[in-house]
Amino acid sequence: MEPVNIFDYQVLAQASMEPPAWDFYQGGSDDEVTLRANRAAFERIRLRPRVLVDVTTCDTSTTLLGTPVSMPVLVAPTALHRLAHPEGECATAQAAGIAKTLMIASTTATRSLEEIAQVATGPLWFQLYTYGGAKSSEKLVRRAEAAGYRAIVLTVDLPRLGNRERDIRSSFNLPSRMREANFSDEEMASMGDDRFALTWDSVTWLRSLTSLPFLLKGILTAEDAELAVQRGVDGIIVSNHGGRQLDSAVAGIEALPEVVEAVAGRCEVYMDGGIRRGTDVLKALALGAKAVLVGRPILWGLAANGTEGVRHVLEILRRELELDMALAGCPTLASINRSLVRII
Amino acid sequence: MEPVNIFDYQVLAQASMEPPAWDFYQGGSDDEVTLRANRAAFERIRLRPRVLVDVTTCDTSTTLLGTPVSMPVLVAPTALHRLAHPEGECATAQAAGIAKTLMIASTTATRSLEEIAQVATGPLWFQLYTYGGAKSSEKLVRRAEAAGYRAIVLTVDLPRLGNRERDIRSSFNLPSRMREANFSDEEMASMGDDRFALTWDSVTWLRSLTSLPFLLKGILTAEDAELAVQRGVDGIIVSNHGGRQLDSAVAGIEALPEVVEAVAGRCEVYMDGGIRRGTDVLKALALGAKAVLVGRPILWGLAANGTEGVRHVLEILRRELELDMALAGCPTLASINRSLVRII
Amino acid sequence: MEPVNIFDYQVLAQASMEPPAWDFYQGGSDDEVTLRANRAAFERIRLRPRVLVDVTTCDTSTTLLGTPVSMPVLVAPTALHRLAHPEGECATAQAAGIAKTLMIASTTATRSLEEIAQVATGPLWFQLYTYGGAKSSEKLVRRAEAAGYRAIVLTVDLPRLGNRERDIRSSFNLPSRMREANFSDEEMASMGDDRFALTWDSVTWLRSLTSLPFLLKGILTAEDAELAVQRGVDGIIVSNHGGRQLDSAVAGIEALPEVVEAVAGRCEVYMDGGIRRGTDVLKALALGAKAVLVGRPILWGLAANGTEGVRHVLEILRRELELDMALAGCPTLASINRSLVRII
Amino acid sequence: MEPVNIFDYQVLAQASMEPPAWDFYQGGSDDEVTLRANRAAFERIRLRPRVLVDVTTCDTSTTLLGTPVSMPVLVAPTALHRLAHPEGECATAQAAGIAKTLMIASTTATRSLEEIAQVATGPLWFQLYTYGGAKSSEKLVRRAEAAGYRAIVLTVDLPRLGNRERDIRSSFNLPSRMREANFSDEEMASMGDDRFALTWDSVTWLRSLTSLPFLLKGILTAEDAELAVQRGVDGIIVSNHGGRQLDSAVAGIEALPEVVEAVAGRCEVYMDGGIRRGTDVLKALALGAKAVLVGRPILWGLAANGTEGVRHVLEILRRELELDMALAGCPTLASINRSLVRII
Repeated sequence: MEPVNIFDYQVLAQASMEPPAWDFYQGGSDDEVTLRANRAAFERIRLRPRVLVDVTTCDTSTTLLGTPVSMPVLVAPTALHRLAHPEGECATAQAAGIAKTLMIASTTATRSLEEIAQVATGPLWFQLYTYGGAKSSEKLVRRAEAAGYRAIVLTVDLPRLGNRERDIRSSFNLPSRMREANFSDEEMASMGDDRFALTWDSVTWLRSLTSLPFLLKGILTAEDAELAVQRGVDGIIVSNHGGRQLDSAVAGIEALPEVVEAVAGRCEVYMDGGIRRGTDVLKALALGAKAVLVGRPILWGLAANGTEGVRHVLEILRRELELDMALAGCPTLASINRSLVRII
Repeated sequence: MEPVNIFDYQVLAQASMEPPAWDFYQGGSDDEVTLRANRAAFERIRLRPRVLVDVTTCDTSTTLLGTPVSMPVLVAPTALHRLAHPEGECATAQAAGIAKTLMIASTTATRSLEEIAQVATGPLWFQLYTYGGAKSSEKLVRRAEAAGYRAIVLTVDLPRLGNRERDIRSSFNLPSRMREANFSDEEMASMGDDRFALTWDSVTWLRSLTSLPFLLKGILTAEDAELAVQRGVDGIIVSNHGGRQLDSAVAGIEALPEVVEAVAGRCEVYMDGGIRRGTDVLKALALGAKAVLVGRPILWGLAANGTEGVRHVLEILRRELELDMALAGCPTLASINRSLVRII
Repeated sequence: MEPVNIFDYQVLAQASMEPPAWDFYQGGSDDEVTLRANRAAFERIRLRPRVLVDVTTCDTSTTLLGTPVSMPVLVAPTALHRLAHPEGECATAQAAGIAKTLMIASTTATRSLEEIAQVATGPLWFQLYTYGGAKSSEKLVRRAEAAGYRAIVLTVDLPRLGNRERDIRSSFNLPSRMREANFSDEEMASMGDDRFALTWDSVTWLRSLTSLPFLLKGILTAEDAELAVQRGVDGIIVSNHGGRQLDSAVAGIEALPEVVEAVAGRCEVYMDGGIRRGTDVLKALALGAKAVLVGRPILWGLAANGTEGVRHVLEILRRELELDMALAGCPTLASINRSLVRII
Repeated sequence: MEPVNIFDYQVLAQASMEPPAWDFYQGGSDDEVTLRANRAAFERIRLRPRVLVDVTTCDTSTTLLGTPVSMPVLVAPTALHRLAHPEGECATAQAAGIAKTLMIASTTATRSLEEIAQVATGPLWFQLYTYGGAKSSEKLVRRAEAAGYRAIVLTVDLPRLGNRERDIRSSFNLPSRMREANFSDEEMASMGDDRFALTWDSVTWLRSLTSLPFLLKGILTAEDAELAVQRGVDGIIVSNHGGRQLDSAVAGIEALPEVVEAVAGRCEVYMDGGIRRGTDVLKALALGAKAVLVGRPILWGLAANGTEGVRHVLEILRRELELDMALAGCPTLASINRSLVRII
């Protein structure tokens, strides 16, 4: 099958992966209500296309916290890319570079942040988990700075791991040939010795550690968006962690409007969860997102065809977005606004 | 099977066509969300019939921009009728004439506009695509005028072709024995040499070219309806191009009320998308449409049984509309108004 | 199978009838949207039961236009009972008498109104169709008066027969051994010679013909309810003719509140369409109906087991209603009001 | 299968029980609309998790009418536990004790209230049915007091048994080897000699009989909640009796908000119906419940694995609740409020 859209890559990926690894990527928590809601919520949003606008060229390029990218679609931080492909996150990073967009590398990568940075040709942000403790976290920030990462994305919705029953039933474990690559054996041994509860005060501390732009990922309410702005963050990523944490949490696209309203332009707002089509991107942008993140589709491309698969997934999204902008009468991202959507 | 309703013709047509051609007619863009929404939206509208009105005779006839027709149901402009039947658009035009209604012939017909006009016994409007460029477009308008077409319908929702994945997967191409009949080989060779972006200024220019009534097809918002009226159009056709352009666009019947309100009687408003029953026509008229267009049902009739099939499809719709007017207590089209419907 | 509820009788009846006759009873018009809506609308209404009321005895009896009955559930007028059972409407009437409720005999019965009256042990109303013309209609009213019918129910939603495609496909015809029993061969020959359009003026005339209580059946709007009251009717039956006339008309239970509000106590209001459970009766009464009519369930009982089947169907409904009144905290029909329901 | 969640226990229980007994536990009344609504209503409630709160420890413990418990999840009163396990309610009580929560023992238990109290290691409340009459009811209250039960829960939604068609079809009867254990043979013989209608006056009388906390179970409206408070109850359990009484009654979680609002803090409010996940508990607490009751899941655990099964079911719920509190940013039950939910 020649993949035509993102869903084709889902089929190809499933055929190429071991069931437990596939389920680790694909699954959500509990009854996967939120996992499904992330998609279903987009179907309750209709587009109101405008006509007779000159859309000879539609410009999908934008600038995210100072970094120019080819489109408002980023590679979301996801774990364990080597489950999908031997090259792991390095293959993903190369694809993001070819697609001229930004990749957010994860703390739980199976290639070290330095390895990723070495092969990357595009901009990188670093996603930070603080489960290693205070010293370990600071060290990760320093390493990310040194390796040229351009922003720190602190994930705030994983005080504990969600209840992912697919993994429990499959006794999912990282295969022994792989390891989380950002920590040495010695670090693993002392991991979490100075573990701390991640709170708003931690945000203040972590934010003060670095002059890089600083984002929070995992905000779903206006209340927390307001607190985030008060703590001086540069960006908020509206996210329910792909439906993998609290089940029956609101969908990202459902939470986006209240966050955008609360933020009122004081920082950039991104969203993730369920983006599969150019029209999904259009809807998120219309509701106030500066850009969207895609997670599973990247892994599907990676599993199906390595760097080329990821590149194609990103190209499909860019091509669809560009066409959809034309069909919606929006030659520029700036011309996309709330009037483009109608919620039914 | 003796066809009893429009859906029977759908079954008969599918059985008589090659799958790629069938998919070309039947398909929508992306995930076909809007294609399905066009039907589903009618199911959320209930009728409030009135009783004890004299409905001995129910008059379905009306006048569309000065042209009398037997019913407020027109033949929508659709492409490539020879995929359904060797006589192509000529067979369709003859059926429309027998049914005493109006056909909108398409630029992308497989019979030339002159051939169609020659055999037509009923009124014709000409649907204009401007992809051939400025000179080519003007020439089409002049030819339509000369051939006796009574109005120009400019399609405005196709700045580019929608993402129709059925056609991509089937590698759909016009069979070599057919050609788009409105252009000579020489014209095809120089096609689009003076291509231009179709904008509101193009509307002003095209409108000024002819004294024929001038309509825009593909408006889905109050904002664009207002602009259309300001540019002096005689009619607006509310349409999402049969779900073939921007996927997840609003359904035609959903967009109709805001367009009717914006237009406020300054021009005629038509709609298409999902009309399959007399009650659908009733609902569209109750929400302010002067008439509706039917696309795929015409092609189904054509594929199933040529001129006679199209005639029967139109007759079924007329007969259903006439009965439904009686059952709803509406002896005239003028007696159909907003109070006839309840949206649930 | 020992039938436990109304749906069991549906199964038994289908097994005992010829498919075309079954489809004639069971079917609706067009796509049967309204047929299904009649049931689905009840599922969107929730009950708010009250507790700690003395419900040792729950009284289901009531008085309908002066006639006492055992429960607010009547036998709706339906056609051609001999399709279900050789005794036809006579069997039905005997069952209604045993159940101590009221039967509305139809003009299109397969037993004459006099035959029915002769065997009936309970009260009868006569449902009038005027398709025979003015003289024929007056004659029916006189015969109904003479035979002891206690009210005239004029059906107003059948200016023409709905589009019932099951009957078209099965070429349904009344079997030759049966005939509509209210007209002699001579009358059939001259039938409709003085046919007239049934209008509000006809209501005035028909109402003036008799001193019996006079009801209209087939009202679905507040507007028509107001006109009915102005013409001096004693009762209104909110009905969409079992989904057999205008398809996608509002469900009876959906239309009931606006009719009740418009009538404001000036006449009695009944409803039919989709009643299958005691809780359905409770909901209709809570929304203002004085009583409900059941159509198809009666035919199911008749087909399954003649008089005894109809009796049991009525007994099931009475028993369920009585239990549901107890469980809802309503010892009397008078204690049932709008606060009992919540529409979701 | 190693059970991972509550639904796994449902599967295990069904495999281990005779169909009629299973249907007795599982079934609802009439068409089981309310039975399904109890679950479906939870799916229309979304959670709005907060982040960056210190959730290192989440405290699920609470105090219910003075009795400390490990979590706001109680064992609902359900009938006939010996259908599931030879030890019956004694096994259940031992599990509740191990789980450090409260069990409400039922009048219709298959082990006497004294037997249950003897083996119980945790707190007990006694659920009272008054069908035995006034003297019998008073005697049950006295016995419950003597046996150390800490509250009386009067069920008010069973003036008669609901229409449970599964039991009718299976001719369900208590197996002869079992008996309702709270009555001697002599008591059974004179049972109901002084039967009375349970009304608000009965509440006044029963409440006056004992100084124990007194709750009503089966309230679904604000109106009855107000009356209950006026009669001096200490707690209200919002419940539709597991969908086994009036079918199409509102779901417990749907009725909860209006009861909480009416009560306005004047007594404790509990709810039951459809609790299967920690997130369900979270939703009920967010909407104002002090705690929730679980019925069928307890019976599933009992059927699958006796005391250990019930213990595990309770442990799963506690573990899920604790995790969900962490993921929702609620370290204490007091921090759970209305802003945590969004009804869609």
